[in-house]
Amino acid sequence: MELIEQSRIFEGRQLRLRHASSSCHCDMTLAIFLPPQAVDQSVPVVWWLSGLTCNDQNFTTKAGAQRIAAELGLAIIAPDTSPRGAEVPDAEDGAWDFGQGAGFYVNATQAPYDRHYQMADYIQQELPSAIQQALPSLLKDFKPLDFSRQSISGHSMGGHGALTLAIKHPEQYRSASAFAPICAPSDCPWGQKALGAYIGQDRNAWRKYDAVALLEDRGYSKPLLVDQGMADSFLDVQLMPDRLEKICQEKRIPLTLNRRAGYDHSYYFISTFIESHLRFHAEALAQV
Amino acid sequence: MELIEQSRIFEGRQLRLRHASSSCHCDMTLAIFLPPQAVDQSVPVVWWLSGLTCNDQNFTTKAGAQRIAAELGLAIIAPDTSPRGAEVPDAEDGAWDFGQGAGFYVNATQAPYDRHYQMADYIQQELPSAIQQALPSLLKDFKPLDFSRQSISGHSMGGHGALTLAIKHPEQYRSASAFAPICAPSDCPWGQKALGAYIGQDRNAWRKYDAVALLEDRGYSKPLLVDQGMADSFLDVQLMPDRLEKICQEKRIPLTLNRRAGYDHSYYFISTFIESHLRFHAEALAQV
Repeated sequence: MELIEQSRIFEGRQLRLRHASSSCHCDMTLAIFLPPQAVDQSVPVVWWLSGLTCNDQNFTTKAGAQRIAAELGLAIIAPDTSPRGAEVPDAEDGAWDFGQGAGFYVNATQAPYDRHYQMADYIQQELPSAIQQALPSLLKDFKPLDFSRQSISGHSMGGHGALTLAIKHPEQYRSASAFAPICAPSDCPWGQKALGAYIGQDRNAWRKYDAVALLEDRGYSKPLLVDQGMADSFLDVQLMPDRLEKICQEKRIPLTLNRRAGYDHSYYFISTFIESHLRFHAEALAQV
Repeated sequence: MELIEQSRIFEGRQLRLRHASSSCHCDMTLAIFLPPQAVDQSVPVVWWLSGLTCNDQNFTTKAGAQRIAAELGLAIIAPDTSPRGAEVPDAEDGAWDFGQGAGFYVNATQAPYDRHYQMADYIQQELPSAIQQALPSLLKDFKPLDFSRQSISGHSMGGHGALTLAIKHPEQYRSASAFAPICAPSDCPWGQKALGAYIGQDRNAWRKYDAVALLEDRGYSKPLLVDQGMADSFLDVQLMPDRLEKICQEKRIPLTLNRRAGYDHSYYFISTFIESHLRFHAEALAQV
């Protein structure tokens, strides 16, 4: 793992790193924010998964999260949204909702995507150990991160990624939150396109990449927070928070769903409410 | 003036507008943040002038200023950094430090730049009245802005713009601040290149676009705040805050110059300290 950029921000350190991913078989770039507390303590980790068309920089430059993470003593890891590179198969029609920038946080099973599109394993398995191994020698003035305390959040496609990873790995992530997540990808155009190509046409195999289906199948007992803008143009056709609310009510899963009047799908919406999400995760991460 | 985008953020409104500029003889795009207080009150204005290569969106998406402006009841106007368009002469060698994206907030006197590069008049004269005229009919649910209360800030080339406009128009701007400003453009490569081409080779004519020279010639008695990162790679050759500090000491001008250890020239630096700048301006703008 190679440190390609670093800047001081809010007395912490914003890093950008590059490494050869063994899961995705390509070079991957990621961003990590280290709060000032990380000089003296092993701090917990919040993962941020971004949405369609994004990379590791959108959240890092636009959300205003470092101010709050610096106060709360949280590291934030923002991976890229897909494998990248000339050798990685992309959308044949140049579409922005499939292929590079649109990995949907799945482990693809279908050729030609299965070799590189292994984003679920990349984020849940490979990155924690790769970061744990590399960071101490890259940054000798910081303590190692505390991967025994992880929480996860994300936006849109990344909200889908955060919810599905959290529901499948409750032992790994202490809390989950999302901004405008794709709640039921099996039943929306973005999800059907991606899951059909990455996972194949057996819709039963899609259930482990669908938050509503996962909650039906497995339930969830960790803290769960979702914010949704009510002026979001993707609300009814792609996101469907009502479906998430319904299954949580049926299964008595304690979801906090905030419907935010007038807010759209942009980072202006995320920047407004990221403070409440980080405080929510900090509370779960503070418990022994 | 046409409203081309709007988003809710921190209960206020982030706008993007386009209009035909009579000063610059081209279409210009700008961003305005209206705080929630602007629904009921005529709120004061902070101008933000961006740096080389930027447009109206860099500050708007990256600085995290809206949170604080929403608390303080400040409107923020972020103009573009130069005239734009196919008909506007640009750097012949494709340089990023001259031409489009690099207007240097001057009124050019030299052909072929003089027809379009009139950024000083555009910001100081045209925009206040153009906005005052257009906004009430575009946004009927907000009160007109209070242009009797204006302050100005900016970054790098925009810090130069903010300081020079403020020193020349103390009746218009109640306070001035800057992040990593080009303090003495007559004596640095960026400034010499731009002023030579826009204003000509008579270095005496450059003095009204040089903060240090203007302070020598005219002094200044309004509140003045500058932050400078000490890990800024442009510090010694292009920015020269020591020159600003020296003339302020000589002329007993009350400058607050904060040297910030470890911070670079990026928006990570700006986002860390923008809160203190907006609170500084709010104090000057609150006085009757």
